[in-house]
Amino acid sequence: MVDLDRLDLASVDSEDMLRRIRELPKQCADAWANAQPLSLPASYKDVSNIIILGMGGSAIGGDLTRTLVQDRCPVPIAVCREYDLPAYATQNTLVIGCSYSGNTEETLSAFDQAAQRGCKLLAITTGGQLVVKAQSYRAPLLTFSYPSQPRGALGHSFVPLVAVLFKLGLIPDPWADLQEAIAVMQDEARLLVPEVETPHNPAKKLALKLHEHLPVVYGAGILSEVARRWKDQFNENAKNWAFYDVLPELNHNSVVGFGLPKSLLPHLLVIILEAAADHPRVAIRAAVTRELLEQAGVAVEVVRSAGRSPLAQMLSVIHLGDFVSFYLAALNGADPTPIPSINYLKKRLAEA
Amino acid sequence: MVDLDRLDLASVDSEDMLRRIRELPKQCADAWANAQPLSLPASYKDVSNIIILGMGGSAIGGDLTRTLVQDRCPVPIAVCREYDLPAYATQNTLVIGCSYSGNTEETLSAFDQAAQRGCKLLAITTGGQLVVKAQSYRAPLLTFSYPSQPRGALGHSFVPLVAVLFKLGLIPDPWADLQEAIAVMQDEARLLVPEVETPHNPAKKLALKLHEHLPVVYGAGILSEVARRWKDQFNENAKNWAFYDVLPELNHNSVVGFGLPKSLLPHLLVIILEAAADHPRVAIRAAVTRELLEQAGVAVEVVRSAGRSPLAQMLSVIHLGDFVSFYLAALNGADPTPIPSINYLKKRLAEA
Repeated sequence: MVDLDRLDLASVDSEDMLRRIRELPKQCADAWANAQPLSLPASYKDVSNIIILGMGGSAIGGDLTRTLVQDRCPVPIAVCREYDLPAYATQNTLVIGCSYSGNTEETLSAFDQAAQRGCKLLAITTGGQLVVKAQSYRAPLLTFSYPSQPRGALGHSFVPLVAVLFKLGLIPDPWADLQEAIAVMQDEARLLVPEVETPHNPAKKLALKLHEHLPVVYGAGILSEVARRWKDQFNENAKNWAFYDVLPELNHNSVVGFGLPKSLLPHLLVIILEAAADHPRVAIRAAVTRELLEQAGVAVEVVRSAGRSPLAQMLSVIHLGDFVSFYLAALNGADPTPIPSINYLKKRLAEA
Repeated sequence: MVDLDRLDLASVDSEDMLRRIRELPKQCADAWANAQPLSLPASYKDVSNIIILGMGGSAIGGDLTRTLVQDRCPVPIAVCREYDLPAYATQNTLVIGCSYSGNTEETLSAFDQAAQRGCKLLAITTGGQLVVKAQSYRAPLLTFSYPSQPRGALGHSFVPLVAVLFKLGLIPDPWADLQEAIAVMQDEARLLVPEVETPHNPAKKLALKLHEHLPVVYGAGILSEVARRWKDQFNENAKNWAFYDVLPELNHNSVVGFGLPKSLLPHLLVIILEAAADHPRVAIRAAVTRELLEQAGVAVEVVRSAGRSPLAQMLSVIHLGDFVSFYLAALNGADPTPIPSINYLKKRLAEA
């Protein structure tokens, strides 16, 4: 059994994913600053809808943005994780292509379609083909530089989109909330880092409970896509199966299946993410869902957000989840950075 | 061990869920006919976007519709499974409240908000509070009558929405495709019914493989929400844990977790739903995903759609999944109709 309080970091984390996780607060501040000089045509303020193109770690920022602003933003936002742009995308649609590498084939395919249809374009990337395409389409381009896997650059996937919505006059200035979120993450991280031993470290404690289990992460509203982030981080960092599900929808189907098959139940650990911003009826639903899980004999852990603003609540839970995935990787003997299956897929797709 | 070829249906299926499953083709035809007299104001043709309100079995029709028409429909469609309507809903938004019972509290909450904001309204239900609200808001109302659980009335959840989009001039006439879908379902059902013994019955064979397992259902594009339907039916009919995930997105995260924890792997069965309409790159991705699962030691089954039109491909796979969930219920010793956990939740929520 790996001792989380005596990790040889150079060995268990050869490419320093921990640094990317620790840097998230600073990365969010940097991403905000990096987006400030971006200038968008005035016509972009009149769009009827927004489509954010991306996959994996470059798509999650789009869904976090969508859920964050859904009580404020006057135009619909959709995230497209497919090769083909939906038919409703026209010259009144802002299509934002997000790809860390700039070479994600689904994103490039849909970005080309957006150009052909005369959509308003924006590209956010570190480089690659997306830069070439954006330049050839004379589209605004926001580049950033942060050496990481895409999932380690979450700040650069999420914060620029919020900044763009503010620039377009679609949401109020988010800077105060972002400052709060950064402070909240910095504060909570003091207990999450490897130097803090297990009895005082919520991330290590949760990772130990998750070890040899199937994590199932539940969230509602602003935490619904945070639940997805936790699932993705368990997959990619810890190389572990994981799923997520969303409240209140799961009260209409998943709850009925909590009891079977019996042989599966000891393998499960359900994590319920709760935010102060949750709808009061959803808060009751979360409590009853927990009861139903415990009645069925399924282990449950509840994680509560920190912070006042919805943005801080989201980022505080994301930051905790990132640390949990790091410690679960260590327990799994999995180096958190390499993603051999995705590399294999890309190789096979390149040959096809 | 239950013998699927000698089921005492009156005992294992006391409220005759099998009949609702068998009737899906006819129900789709009836739902189409039932929607024909519906008259909508001319102004509804000018909406900028559509929001479909619903939960569980009354929401899935919305997402099936959204995925079916995304290559054709000129306005964005979103499904809202929450208490609160997104901020972008205005007088240019068509809000369709869908609730089998008419008493789903999330749907009623968002429907009230839609009325307050002056959205264009439509209600689809069998009765309940939604009828009262629609009448008080002078909103068009489409009622139907079909004695069932909401999930057993899928035809009435899905087909009327397609009919409404056609009435509004947003999609071409779907009737020929629906006729094909009905014929395809009737044809495939000949092998799926209890009278056909296991060696010749694909639904029984798949249910036997799933028994004592965790079903994980993958689909892409028009089958992404069909995968969700399979998951929901395993939950509600078979009282079994189940999850779904979507291609190509899962190639960017889930694939990395296929190998751990080792103790979980024998419990998993991944079902990959494939449609003739799949994007060619997605078809390659599905094949490589299967390889990766098998390399990790996870059992995989592939299900292929029948039919020519996307609608037929969707409904053919839904129909198979419904039968599989029925046989899995029998193997689990679970009566497919009652949903005690949801009733418990409703009781607790009513007390709160």
